[in-house]
Amino acid sequence: MSALQEISPNVRNMKQIQYVVLFKRANQIKEELRQNVIKPYKELIDVCWGDPHKGGVKPLTFVRQVLAACLYPQLVDSNKLPVDVRQRARTLLKGCEGGSVGSYTATPGIPEIVHRISEFITRRDGGTPSHPENIYISPGSQWALQNVLNILVDREASPKTGVLTPLPCYSTSVMSMVGLGAVAVPYSLCEERGWELRVEELHRALESAKGVCKPVALYVINPGNPTSQVQSRKSMQEVIRFVSEKRLFLLADEVYQDCVYGEKSEFVSYKKVLAEMGPPLSDTVELASFHSASKGLMGECGLRGGYVELVNLDPTIMKYIYTLFSTSSCAPVSGQFALDLLVNPPQPADPSYPLYQKETQCIRSTLAHNVKRVFEVLNSLPGVSCQPLQGGAYAFPRMHLPPKAIQKAKEMGMQPDLYYCMRLLEEAGVLVIPGCDYGLKEGNHHIRFCIIVQKDIMEELLSRLTSFHTQFMKDFS
Amino acid sequence: MSALQEISPNVRNMKQIQYVVLFKRANQIKEELRQNVIKPYKELIDVCWGDPHKGGVKPLTFVRQVLAACLYPQLVDSNKLPVDVRQRARTLLKGCEGGSVGSYTATPGIPEIVHRISEFITRRDGGTPSHPENIYISPGSQWALQNVLNILVDREASPKTGVLTPLPCYSTSVMSMVGLGAVAVPYSLCEERGWELRVEELHRALESAKGVCKPVALYVINPGNPTSQVQSRKSMQEVIRFVSEKRLFLLADEVYQDCVYGEKSEFVSYKKVLAEMGPPLSDTVELASFHSASKGLMGECGLRGGYVELVNLDPTIMKYIYTLFSTSSCAPVSGQFALDLLVNPPQPADPSYPLYQKETQCIRSTLAHNVKRVFEVLNSLPGVSCQPLQGGAYAFPRMHLPPKAIQKAKEMGMQPDLYYCMRLLEEAGVLVIPGCDYGLKEGNHHIRFCIIVQKDIMEELLSRLTSFHTQFMKDFS
Repeated sequence: MSALQEISPNVRNMKQIQYVVLFKRANQIKEELRQNVIKPYKELIDVCWGDPHKGGVKPLTFVRQVLAACLYPQLVDSNKLPVDVRQRARTLLKGCEGGSVGSYTATPGIPEIVHRISEFITRRDGGTPSHPENIYISPGSQWALQNVLNILVDREASPKTGVLTPLPCYSTSVMSMVGLGAVAVPYSLCEERGWELRVEELHRALESAKGVCKPVALYVINPGNPTSQVQSRKSMQEVIRFVSEKRLFLLADEVYQDCVYGEKSEFVSYKKVLAEMGPPLSDTVELASFHSASKGLMGECGLRGGYVELVNLDPTIMKYIYTLFSTSSCAPVSGQFALDLLVNPPQPADPSYPLYQKETQCIRSTLAHNVKRVFEVLNSLPGVSCQPLQGGAYAFPRMHLPPKAIQKAKEMGMQPDLYYCMRLLEEAGVLVIPGCDYGLKEGNHHIRFCIIVQKDIMEELLSRLTSFHTQFMKDFS
Repeated sequence: MSALQEISPNVRNMKQIQYVVLFKRANQIKEELRQNVIKPYKELIDVCWGDPHKGGVKPLTFVRQVLAACLYPQLVDSNKLPVDVRQRARTLLKGCEGGSVGSYTATPGIPEIVHRISEFITRRDGGTPSHPENIYISPGSQWALQNVLNILVDREASPKTGVLTPLPCYSTSVMSMVGLGAVAVPYSLCEERGWELRVEELHRALESAKGVCKPVALYVINPGNPTSQVQSRKSMQEVIRFVSEKRLFLLADEVYQDCVYGEKSEFVSYKKVLAEMGPPLSDTVELASFHSASKGLMGECGLRGGYVELVNLDPTIMKYIYTLFSTSSCAPVSGQFALDLLVNPPQPADPSYPLYQKETQCIRSTLAHNVKRVFEVLNSLPGVSCQPLQGGAYAFPRMHLPPKAIQKAKEMGMQPDLYYCMRLLEEAGVLVIPGCDYGLKEGNHHIRFCIIVQKDIMEELLSRLTSFHTQFMKDFS
């Protein structure tokens, strides 16, 4: 009888996420623990998202002091806060209409902040100019990605619009595309080569789209999620030549740019590599690069601040970009402020500098410790192999599950890695995401978990995982 | 050469907003004033959005103290803040993973807050039960509206999906629909009867859609934007019967529910009226009701917190709602907190109560003053008529512009009311929105401006408007 019996087919095509059943069970377990039900563990370890604060990493004091002062400006005049914090709060509030974080901002964000982001990008890219009018702040980078896809995806086109998308890839990105009426055309990252992006595979994927859809864009994530690889300059150059030749729009998700720890790894932005390649490429390849305050050392996921920089877009198109972003007024001011603090951390002469340095250094050393330990422990477990971790927030080990476990999962009507995750949750109180939510093929099993967490939480996680896994392999041997 | 030459036609169909030219000029004028260029005014009065803080209304102390303490939890232990503020901050932080506002929350929002919103709705609607699982928090209500439209609009349908939409209507709401591939089917509100929604007009609009599109939903805004009418219970009952009979989904934008000031006006929610009507209507009519922390007395637009409550939706559909909202992770935590404080203000026994009462009372009396003055002054101007203001944040007077002014506008290639706004901006330094951005027909001219602003700003605005308008009418007589 209902109007919704005829739900939009694009939405209907969005795959239901597998991990939802895990979340439901995790919530029940939390409730059971609250009610003192006896379990082999006292607390759940939840490492499913790239969410450092959830994993016990402390927020940066400078960031929180500035935000508190902006929200409650009486603090700006109090001598309880460092002078640079109060100065920064004053500057930020000056950018707000009526001097209040409670006012709407311009659609692309507070002009002064957008300007400082463009200066940051210019510095980061060794002088390659960045123009404020090409930057849009949004409530998280995924939201900006959706808006750009909105421009690219022709919902009425036949064949449908295609977007080349890495495999494995974060499920909600793929769902956004499908929800907009696009077809995600997967290109596989090469696990055996440390999840390398190979240009031959891009050609194969493009070929595979023939007769299915019309690809208009290539989506890359560097550093990788969930795959934690960092692309080399050479690989990026190949990608740029490929998109230019095939006339594809390049969507570069670079939100983990501050999180690079592989010994020989270095983050270089697509914008910089493009500029280095010179004309005609540098004048023609259309690029959208995404960054965020949620990722990296700041880890302020809850504030919801991300941005996109658009390169080489036609001015007419930029008008539509404005229109699209304006339909949701503006990004949350707290998220905009977080971005400002991300791109302009305290400088050596500032009173807040020593503490800021100490806190960020502490997170870096935690991360270095975790990377080393995770790699060692995972690769020491029977049937587990983990590629070198170079950047990003996750480990994504391959789980070679025994045939009997796979059989059991089938009986339970679950993907084998979901079954593994369900047991890991139930028996060891560890919540991770199964590889099946990243689109990997049958017979290819993984788990993903966040590695930006407190050291002791990571040790406890590895200890629980080791015991559980050893028993699991024994049970199904 | 570019992939974007083939921009999505739905996006291309999104009408460019007229007021953008006004904004550009307003920014130039601000810059000129900063550089001491001599003008007939020293400051711009910008009343284009429903943004109280921009108009000098002060944020509520209680709200800001709680938010500051949540962001910088050292304040929770300081005795500088009232004990109920600290207690509230503690409670809110307990709902955050890792005790930090920097963590992602569940997709629909922090469970405790969602629960308290449902309790608020139940109280508001005199006991009509509200279920937490039907509530989704989003970064502003417009964003939630887009997600619901996403479910309703079949982008591949032929004929297209239609949504009955008020005329006049906020341009970005209509653009969201068009951007999603829907057709907005306008139904006119009756200006002469105080912008009344008449059910005959709904029938006419539905009829007009034949052969053009397939309407699946009716969008209503109560209290009105830009029209400031408040619907009567009788009118709402007629609307409910209409959507039930025509099998339309009811989208009720109720974000101005706290802003009702008409003498005989009272806000009643669509949910409550639906419940009062009893089965079968109360069990079958599909309803989405939107609310926000941006509107009303709190006016925290920049924090970006809104929610939707969904009523009578099939559980299968609710799964897709979850999936859609999950593509953008979660709403900003500061916005979620603002909603919590909106639905649970301080109670008489709380230390913060007296100040809270004083501050909200002050805003109420400012609003009452402004409503009275705006109505008097507008209706005293030659060629201006303003319907009674009953609720919402805006005045939307009709401007009967002289034929010579209309001729002049044509020569300038502008809509007549845009031309009027441009002159008002240039000569009097007042930024308002032209009625042409609300879809009104040729020959029907209006301006919209926000009335929730400081008293002295309102007086200055009315004084500038009066002088300008008198001169304008003289010039074109």
